Amino acid sequence: MAKLVECIPNFSEGRDQAVIDGLVKVAQSVPGCTLFDAQSDASHNRCVFTLVGSPESVEEVAFLLCKKASETIDMTKHEGAHPRMGATDVIPFVPTVNMTVEECVEMSKRVAQRIWDELKIPSFLYEDSATSPDRVNLASCRKGQFEGMPEKLLKPEWAPDYGERKIHPTAGITAIGARMPLVAFNVNLDTPDVEIANKIAKMIRGSSGGFKYCKAIGVMLEDRNIAQVSMNMVNYEGTQLYRVFEMIRAEADRWGVRIIGSEVVGLTPAKALVDAAEYYLKIENFDYHKQVMENHLVGL
Amino acid sequence: MAKLVECIPNFSEGRDQAVIDGLVKVAQSVPGCTLFDAQSDASHNRCVFTLVGSPESVEEVAFLLCKKASETIDMTKHEGAHPRMGATDVIPFVPTVNMTVEECVEMSKRVAQRIWDELKIPSFLYEDSATSPDRVNLASCRKGQFEGMPEKLLKPEWAPDYGERKIHPTAGITAIGARMPLVAFNVNLDTPDVEIANKIAKMIRGSSGGFKYCKAIGVMLEDRNIAQVSMNMVNYEGTQLYRVFEMIRAEADRWGVRIIGSEVVGLTPAKALVDAAEYYLKIENFDYHKQVMENHLVGL
Repeated sequence: MAKLVECIPNFSEGRDQAVIDGLVKVAQSVPGCTLFDAQSDASHNRCVFTLVGSPESVEEVAFLLCKKASETIDMTKHEGAHPRMGATDVIPFVPTVNMTVEECVEMSKRVAQRIWDELKIPSFLYEDSATSPDRVNLASCRKGQFEGMPEKLLKPEWAPDYGERKIHPTAGITAIGARMPLVAFNVNLDTPDVEIANKIAKMIRGSSGGFKYCKAIGVMLEDRNIAQVSMNMVNYEGTQLYRVFEMIRAEADRWGVRIIGSEVVGLTPAKALVDAAEYYLKIENFDYHKQVMENHLVGL
Repeated sequence: MAKLVECIPNFSEGRDQAVIDGLVKVAQSVPGCTLFDAQSDASHNRCVFTLVGSPESVEEVAFLLCKKASETIDMTKHEGAHPRMGATDVIPFVPTVNMTVEECVEMSKRVAQRIWDELKIPSFLYEDSATSPDRVNLASCRKGQFEGMPEKLLKPEWAPDYGERKIHPTAGITAIGARMPLVAFNVNLDTPDVEIANKIAKMIRGSSGGFKYCKAIGVMLEDRNIAQVSMNMVNYEGTQLYRVFEMIRAEADRWGVRIIGSEVVGLTPAKALVDAAEYYLKIENFDYHKQVMENHLVGL
């Protein structure tokens, strides 16, 4: 069964097209890895690539991009609106088809080792690769940014996971980690009272005692005059969409409020939705990886 | 967006391994088309291939296999338990990813034309390619089998769709057509009364006034002592799984019977299940082809 992994590296260059083109060329240089998307933003002075391919090819490209960025981006001259700490600022690996997050954690560690060995760029492991709870969050790792890193790395609790306690002089330091694909899922209520959406959001999100892998806020949809529970599902296999949906239904009921619709924003893995079908149709003994045709077709 | 089509040609040879191997070799000869599975059965004296690939490559392989079968299989000497009328007995094209059934109908017509032009093998178009209602069903086309075909083709209503009113002397005649993937979907009831399952099956199947693309019977699961509504969903986009499920729930209720589970047998396209998630989660404005990640990954 073919495996596919997604990688979304962020580089600290969004203005110099020649530098961006150089990175694009590297991203397209290894068979088996496809550059799906490349977006740059001048005010953030940052570009974001989306790579998809076999684990081996994606891992190779992630390293080669990191090397190229270290040769063409000088962080001592970088300015932009977005927080950043390295020429290659962050490298997330996301399991896409027939891959586990554990396999992506292993990939992240191998890349981190290699960019230290061959490029002398240190790194933090973050998200599912993190070696301590305070490193899970990317913002915590990046706090202090490029300019504050030399001092931060000397603090007892902020030694890099790979490399010595000093940044690469021009490429800084990189965050590398595995994470599940994020599904943006919003549920619309038949009330114009955003406070109800806020209360429900608080009940269902992990940070206030709800579902572990659900982030949620209440928002007002002014054009439709209805309130919405807006969510980021950061691990749709750990906290399935149907579970938050049913819990929102139950919580809303106490105010006599009903769900009138929902929304999946952007891309989603099929499994995030097939899991809901399995629940509602009460399907017994379903083997997603074997029985869903698309899992066999990928890579043909 | 990459397109993938499935083709499941059936050949009238299940005993002579040299002939089967020759067909396998042809099936693997065109880049872009993968031989997913090859199964032969000696008592049926028949083999079934599953091909998956780009429309162009699959169309080419379908023709080449038909040619090879006409050179290596002699229907005047064929015997076996399974009804058959040609060396290549039937060629179904099934839309798999980013394909419509209409595109598969066009493929079937081009192949039918070509096997007449180049091989002088006539054909019937069946299923979604059929040119009249009595040709939709493969069994109707095949009735009379190889031995009865010379006479059948002279009947006013049974001229081949392509070719003259006589079979190829050794390769017979072939049925070619497009059809939707079939999803085998069974719903289990909390009753040991198979009559209830039979009544529900009759209510929901197309042949007795129910859902157009649903075939259904009641069966008894002896080991669990429960009755089951066993279905073939022959077009899951025309009649969605959640619709028969909800109708079974409603019909069962009149006898105080509940659904306790369901079963999807074998392979299913993700969309057959994602459609159910869309319904139950009330997802608004969902664009399956754009938003489901796997649709973009196929062919990478």
